[in-house]
Amino acid sequence: MKARVTIMLKDGVLDPQGEAIRHALGGLGHKGVGGVRQGKLIELDLDATDTDAAQAEVVKMCEGLLANTVIEKYSIEIV
Amino acid sequence: MKARVTIMLKDGVLDPQGEAIRHALGGLGHKGVGGVRQGKLIELDLDATDTDAAQAEVVKMCEGLLANTVIEKYSIEIV
Repeated sequence: MKARVTIMLKDGVLDPQGEAIRHALGGLGHKGVGGVRQGKLIELDLDATDTDAAQAEVVKMCEGLLANTVIEKYSIEIV
Repeated sequence: MKARVTIMLKDGVLDPQGEAIRHALGGLGHKGVGGVRQGKLIELDLDATDTDAAQAEVVKMCEGLLANTVIEKYSIEIV
């Protein structure tokens, strides 16, 4: 079973990395880019066979290690 | 219009960041994690109103700046 965790900065938290990308895209001639946010994507191969158990386990991983929940939000997709 | 770009290392390319996460998860007691790959997620706000034009523009951005196509693969989702 695979889990896909998406971690983004919360709305309102300054994203300098995204801003740098926006600036660089502008410099390369890509006009019309209003805003850019960069986040992380983590793909986990899990031995678990039960979807609910896997989901609960990945939530624990996010809270404990993967995401900084003060400034980041995460979403989990079990595939 | 929003575009969501997912950038992952190609299969077979060593992912030390993912490996570090796997190791840390093991240390925190999360057994049953077979493999971890970490990638990037970039969300772009685009002024474009035509889906095909937006898609073509984002492909150019990926090839020119966002992804290192030697070692990374990307996928684009227009939302």
